Amino acid sequence: MLYLIGLGLGDKTDITVKGLEIVKRAKRVYLEIYTSILGDDHKELEGFYGRSVIPADREFVEINADEILNGADVDDIAFLVVGDPLGATTHTDLILRAKERKIDYRLVHNASIINACGACGLQLYNFGEVVSIPLWTDSWKPTSYVEKICQNLKANLHTLCLLDIKVKEQSIEAMMKGKKEYLPPTFMSASVASHVASQQLIDSIQELPELCAAVNLSEDSTCVALARVGSESQKIHKCTLKEMIQVDMGPPLHSLIVVGKLHPIEEDMLKLFE
Amino acid sequence: MLYLIGLGLGDKTDITVKGLEIVKRAKRVYLEIYTSILGDDHKELEGFYGRSVIPADREFVEINADEILNGADVDDIAFLVVGDPLGATTHTDLILRAKERKIDYRLVHNASIINACGACGLQLYNFGEVVSIPLWTDSWKPTSYVEKICQNLKANLHTLCLLDIKVKEQSIEAMMKGKKEYLPPTFMSASVASHVASQQLIDSIQELPELCAAVNLSEDSTCVALARVGSESQKIHKCTLKEMIQVDMGPPLHSLIVVGKLHPIEEDMLKLFE
Repeated sequence: MLYLIGLGLGDKTDITVKGLEIVKRAKRVYLEIYTSILGDDHKELEGFYGRSVIPADREFVEINADEILNGADVDDIAFLVVGDPLGATTHTDLILRAKERKIDYRLVHNASIINACGACGLQLYNFGEVVSIPLWTDSWKPTSYVEKICQNLKANLHTLCLLDIKVKEQSIEAMMKGKKEYLPPTFMSASVASHVASQQLIDSIQELPELCAAVNLSEDSTCVALARVGSESQKIHKCTLKEMIQVDMGPPLHSLIVVGKLHPIEEDMLKLFE
Repeated sequence: MLYLIGLGLGDKTDITVKGLEIVKRAKRVYLEIYTSILGDDHKELEGFYGRSVIPADREFVEINADEILNGADVDDIAFLVVGDPLGATTHTDLILRAKERKIDYRLVHNASIINACGACGLQLYNFGEVVSIPLWTDSWKPTSYVEKICQNLKANLHTLCLLDIKVKEQSIEAMMKGKKEYLPPTFMSASVASHVASQQLIDSIQELPELCAAVNLSEDSTCVALARVGSESQKIHKCTLKEMIQVDMGPPLHSLIVVGKLHPIEEDMLKLFE
């Protein structure tokens, strides 16, 4: 059996009892290390589980999927994912490969930022489509995510913005030359994600003035930054987009919510984070 | 400290290691029993935790919030919620009352249907606003939720439909007379939720023909029913709305997804549940 096990968002103790039992008895345990990060590192997890854990980056999972699945028809193989196991498309791919090989799979769910963002007091029912804010480069400055935020605002909905994580990505030059050379890992969240995202969002708003004005999206719009949700050092801060550029949210991961229409109880809850 | 602890969706072992540690050491433990249900009942949880657990229905939480919070300034009090602790507005109310009394609180997140619905292979990024499908009565047949589904379809998004849970609700007559008389508990999910919801949705579509035709929402639209997500007996089934009326999804809880535009990998995943 292939088990895809969510680790939740905070630290090693956010695994479920069910997940931990499987980890302890599984033949092999892989830890997916490229779509998100946990407060505890690989070694701390190994200590907590009392067993070895094989780190798996994107290249490993894509190239060695068959190796991961080997023996999963007779033994239990665990594949650990920060958050909920099906947050990222890549892992449905692993399931499809397992099914092709007649290997059964099971999911062990856990919190993901998609639901844990409710920690700021905004109601999950009042969120629209989730967007990713990509880290701009000199030559690539997409603004399409702003259109989705505006769509949500038009329907009075909040928008959860995931801040792009980049780990072990190839440079465009290396990719074109077919070389296995990687850029230094960039977490957009490396202490400045919420600044950068707020600044990019303000820049994007200036690129799309009519669209944004129609839904009152401006640098004075209310937003909420969330950092390290579920961990001891969790930080939630509410202010305007313009003010957010100056706020230090600390270490990764960060996410940012653009606030839609507030229900009175949501207003009361947000006051806790001013 | 007041701890609001998510229990996840399946059974008693879906609590996190962090949550279980707090439950074991807390002075008092309350179990919220009105916004959702777990596969294991109150007694099974007590056995698993090795301690007594106080069941708390809506009336109890609303009237006895102060009793729940008593002593939480010096001792740890745990309040257990199926799914993630902040899925339901009622619990933000408990937090606000705690803050009024200068009592600190902490959340222990867990999976909720909002993210665990990804189990069917649809990507969480492709969902729009969540809707609730209320259980119609003879005199109350709202269709406003269909407008939200249409809004999502227009933006190519899937819609997660939560199927109304009613536990210990007062009858309208009793409420008007100020009596504490309750209706028999109604889970819309009592084995037929997915039938009833599909039939209601088809009826609603017929009430709003132009709106629905504009986004191709009809009895032939693709939907996915999910039952008991995260439990051993989990069932996921994909078919048309019309066909769903005949599908037996078994015991509660059920939810229903109206499918928007499919990505090829989503199509491949959904084939697993045909």
